[in-house]
Amino acid sequence: MTRSVLYMSMSLDGYIAGPNDGPGNPGGDGFMRLHEWFGFASGAGPAAETVDASGVGRQFLDEIRQTGAVLSGRNTAEQVDHWGGDHHDGVPIFVPSHRPPGTSVGKYPLVTYVTEGIGSAMAQAKAVAGSQNVLVHGAYTAHTALAAGVLDEIQVHLVPVLFGGGRRLFELLPARIELEVVRVVDTPEATHVRYRVVS
Amino acid sequence: MTRSVLYMSMSLDGYIAGPNDGPGNPGGDGFMRLHEWFGFASGAGPAAETVDASGVGRQFLDEIRQTGAVLSGRNTAEQVDHWGGDHHDGVPIFVPSHRPPGTSVGKYPLVTYVTEGIGSAMAQAKAVAGSQNVLVHGAYTAHTALAAGVLDEIQVHLVPVLFGGGRRLFELLPARIELEVVRVVDTPEATHVRYRVVS
Repeated sequence: MTRSVLYMSMSLDGYIAGPNDGPGNPGGDGFMRLHEWFGFASGAGPAAETVDASGVGRQFLDEIRQTGAVLSGRNTAEQVDHWGGDHHDGVPIFVPSHRPPGTSVGKYPLVTYVTEGIGSAMAQAKAVAGSQNVLVHGAYTAHTALAAGVLDEIQVHLVPVLFGGGRRLFELLPARIELEVVRVVDTPEATHVRYRVVS
Repeated sequence: MTRSVLYMSMSLDGYIAGPNDGPGNPGGDGFMRLHEWFGFASGAGPAAETVDASGVGRQFLDEIRQTGAVLSGRNTAEQVDHWGGDHHDGVPIFVPSHRPPGTSVGKYPLVTYVTEGIGSAMAQAKAVAGSQNVLVHGAYTAHTALAAGVLDEIQVHLVPVLFGGGRRLFELLPARIELEVVRVVDTPEATHVRYRVVS
């Protein structure tokens, strides 16, 4: 069964972006600290080509690349210009947004803006993903997906650092949500915990 | 070497207390959800006597009971009337506060209010703890101890639940603080991660 999965690197105090997050500074100050665990080459981003093949970084990148669709928040998508139109392996990218897409989107056939809300966007993403999972991107989108009951799993990479400020993954939710621990991968660089959303 | 250690049960979204925290409702609504992992008998608090001897709850309670002094925030201490004057095994209890203690404190010889700040309170607690550790209690106190550089370790019991609201363990810090993963204990009820404060 296809599941929607959020992958997120988070500091122990809950931040997934540093201060001064915005266009030109995606992820904010110190953002790369949260992604060092990937083991990518210094100065490079966490792309598969630059990750140490022996580490858990490779394992998680492989997992991410096996997803059959991407559902991304608009801010996240726009900050990286929709990954140049292809997040990985030509899978479709869905962006829930009530505003019309920017002009650059017309040249990206894999990118679909969905105006009917997160539920519709997730249903479309799951339909095209087939037996593969849907990769969920973006804190706000994760939050709305959780609140709408359409987020199935959360893969947290808990990084041993206190950021002290920035943007948190979890802000106020309408109700308490129970999780189930599916898997823990324990490394010095991060504690990788995968949760299933129960209710 | 004696170390100061914070033990804290925290939801994945960073809450250590539910909404409506206050006298008469210590820990706020749903507080006990964060402490179910102790495995104590239904309705009882996490006291050693009520914990299943086979579980990690017993392991952590034993660890906590081996501390040689307690440093507690005033709110935490007052909400439970200073544990009736004895937190465990007659070890001294230090409460940093700029205001004079309440009238009940006079009858508790183990309780010392310290007006010279968190650094002085921690130095006194470490001095009496000898070769044992100092147990740190309270979110605000943990925060000021971190900011003052006198918190050595953080034992987080990460509970698989999103609280959605309440009181967070970590609020804004003056700077980024690096941690080191010392130990991970992986159970279905909680992911127990112990950190050393590096800088």
